[in-house]
Amino acid sequence: MREAYQSDLRHLVDDLVNMASMVESALSDATDALLDGDLALAERVVAADPHIDERQLDLDAKSVELLARQSPVATDLRLLVASLRMSSSLERMGDLCAHVALVARRSHPELAVPEQHREQIRRMSDLALAALRDAAQVISDRDLALAAQVEKNDDELDELQQEIAREIGKGEGYTNTQIVDLTLLIRFYERLGDHAVSLVRRVGFLVTGDAVDTLGQATDVTEF
Amino acid sequence: MREAYQSDLRHLVDDLVNMASMVESALSDATDALLDGDLALAERVVAADPHIDERQLDLDAKSVELLARQSPVATDLRLLVASLRMSSSLERMGDLCAHVALVARRSHPELAVPEQHREQIRRMSDLALAALRDAAQVISDRDLALAAQVEKNDDELDELQQEIAREIGKGEGYTNTQIVDLTLLIRFYERLGDHAVSLVRRVGFLVTGDAVDTLGQATDVTEF
Repeated sequence: MREAYQSDLRHLVDDLVNMASMVESALSDATDALLDGDLALAERVVAADPHIDERQLDLDAKSVELLARQSPVATDLRLLVASLRMSSSLERMGDLCAHVALVARRSHPELAVPEQHREQIRRMSDLALAALRDAAQVISDRDLALAAQVEKNDDELDELQQEIAREIGKGEGYTNTQIVDLTLLIRFYERLGDHAVSLVRRVGFLVTGDAVDTLGQATDVTEF
Repeated sequence: MREAYQSDLRHLVDDLVNMASMVESALSDATDALLDGDLALAERVVAADPHIDERQLDLDAKSVELLARQSPVATDLRLLVASLRMSSSLERMGDLCAHVALVARRSHPELAVPEQHREQIRRMSDLALAALRDAAQVISDRDLALAAQVEKNDDELDELQQEIAREIGKGEGYTNTQIVDLTLLIRFYERLGDHAVSLVRRVGFLVTGDAVDTLGQATDVTEF
């Protein structure tokens, strides 16, 4: 019984890591769809999002069941609370990937991202993708050094968002729709990074054993 | 002991309602700051956001403590899980209000919202405010009829976002910065509405007693 319980807890971590890898695929595909104007790929990303949502429901059902059945305390309780939060972040990240794909779809056959911003958007996507991959590893290995790295890398994502916003503000030759789309896109990538930071902070909460997840908030109130 | 526990659970609901009313003030002030170009008020909204964050930490600490100490099952367990989620939504709503205030601050002394969109933005804010007020009442009274109304009213918020986005897309005379700001603003108000819907769905989960919060996701993957 006790062994089954420990195995259930380990499975929960595996499920979180699997969910992260579904979001990774969605993010990678969404950016490709966006930059290549690949409508079919964009549609696939949008169509796949409900599967990520189902994973969350499944994961949360397991967490709640374990809370009810095992009355966990200490580390196990923290793991279950963290799991409920991490699944929310991952679900939301899936939504954000679908949003990127929706911008690609809405713009088709035009490309949403003007030539001069392609590299920056690719870089934002790469940074978000790396953050997500690292976060999955942090969840799996509880590697707090890597967690610190994820936080640090998030700054570059914020800076890129601000850089692009500044360039749009004083730039010329954009259509209104391009500005709307770019503004949304850089916000989506920046939010993806924030959620990755939230994920690793929650692992920190698990490891350090603070009474509550004081660091787990996505502190997204920045000057942009 | 048992009585103290029931009283703790009731306090949790009161705390959520109080947190909602802090967010209500933030939202109302943020919109006033935005539409009146009131820099001091914008600063106050930004400065007040950490207090909302603290409320979440406090609330979550209580929820986790009750989970650990009382090993709740059934309705009580659902209340605690819902509370953890609702506090997250409210904290996030506080962030979004601060974002609105930051747009007001960044634009000062200019007004961020062009004359022709002032009424629409006021309406979006009023709808989000009503949704938040209703959500607080749903949390307090578990009134599922009102919950259904919140969901229905959210459609108008989505439609307004789309309407403004369409008008920007084909409009003339905007500066690039106005387009960036408006795009962000209508997204913030729309997200505020989504979070209110999440809040009332979580109450639905409490009342109907589904095994898991299947309706609690902010399904924000819409065509805009």
